[in-house]
Amino acid sequence: MKLYDSVRAPNPRRVRLFLAEKGITVPMVTVDLAAFEHREASYSKINTLQRTPALELDDGIILTESVAICRYFEAIHPEPALFGRTPIEQARIEMWNRRAELELFIPITHVFRHLHPGMAKHEVPQIAEWGEANKPKVIAGLALLNDALAHYPFVAGEAFSIADITALCAIDFMKPTRIKVPDEMVHLLRWHAEVSARPSAAA
Amino acid sequence: MKLYDSVRAPNPRRVRLFLAEKGITVPMVTVDLAAFEHREASYSKINTLQRTPALELDDGIILTESVAICRYFEAIHPEPALFGRTPIEQARIEMWNRRAELELFIPITHVFRHLHPGMAKHEVPQIAEWGEANKPKVIAGLALLNDALAHYPFVAGEAFSIADITALCAIDFMKPTRIKVPDEMVHLLRWHAEVSARPSAAA
Repeated sequence: MKLYDSVRAPNPRRVRLFLAEKGITVPMVTVDLAAFEHREASYSKINTLQRTPALELDDGIILTESVAICRYFEAIHPEPALFGRTPIEQARIEMWNRRAELELFIPITHVFRHLHPGMAKHEVPQIAEWGEANKPKVIAGLALLNDALAHYPFVAGEAFSIADITALCAIDFMKPTRIKVPDEMVHLLRWHAEVSARPSAAA
Repeated sequence: MKLYDSVRAPNPRRVRLFLAEKGITVPMVTVDLAAFEHREASYSKINTLQRTPALELDDGIILTESVAICRYFEAIHPEPALFGRTPIEQARIEMWNRRAELELFIPITHVFRHLHPGMAKHEVPQIAEWGEANKPKVIAGLALLNDALAHYPFVAGEAFSIADITALCAIDFMKPTRIKVPDEMVHLLRWHAEVSARPSAAA
């Protein structure tokens, strides 16, 4: 088994953080996105979509998509459960993982990819107006999480889950977009300090 | 239990199709999106994001996000399995459901929301250039599925799964975007004819 990984990019970090929470070590192969290694023929054979992460199993099966890779590790290594146990927990974690992704993570990537000069060769065409249109969506996504975290310690409820991992990787990726969590979102800031202090956050 | 549903919109259809495949009947409440009923205060209390579908359980718990609602029904009513059984099946279905969503469903919604005159009050601001930029993404997403379906009967492999439901609801929603599956994508057209013939497709 080996994991194709990239530094700084938020999606590979989701998987590294998930593995750290599970206490699983997997051999890593670093793919340098800045050097466009993900566009080379050798990596395109691993993932035709030319993105990281990707997990290659010993029998040659390749899994892509961060959450699919995490779900595989959840199935073969169930403890600690990061996708929930009961039907309600599983549904709430799925719901909040998707909200963290669709309402926050994706708008952040659109701001970054459509406004950052360094992304001009990665996102063609760059559409500045679309990047700007995503800034209020990011603030709305942050507010949604802040409201949830007023009632619960973690994004999806009482327990740390993959929804916290998605939200943390999204928020930490706001740095290159120059958006900050507003000071008045005190519940989100409380949560961010707590999850950032977990050893897995260094992954 | 009741399900807040809307006609014509692709996300509520995903849940209806999922329930039809499971043989589950749930009381429905129709929310009229064209009449902006989803923006009214009474529905905003159900889902602050003002979107359908939403599932209200008998104890008042509300689940939103189509896939989270489907996952709840999978947990309480496991047969037939639509999210996979083995770790590899579960991961492959997660991977392909996400690919169908991220590479096809979402680009289709961007084309629709940013180019259709009827969406001007729903998507503010409408950015025509972004709508146009998503047309080649839609074709690339269709090609990705066509390649997969050259090797397998269904999107995620040997068995019908939620990935087929997502892909079918996405493709059928291409009609208002005026994009058609290209004639040369014969595997995708074969699959589309087959899944459209299942009784659940009428949901």
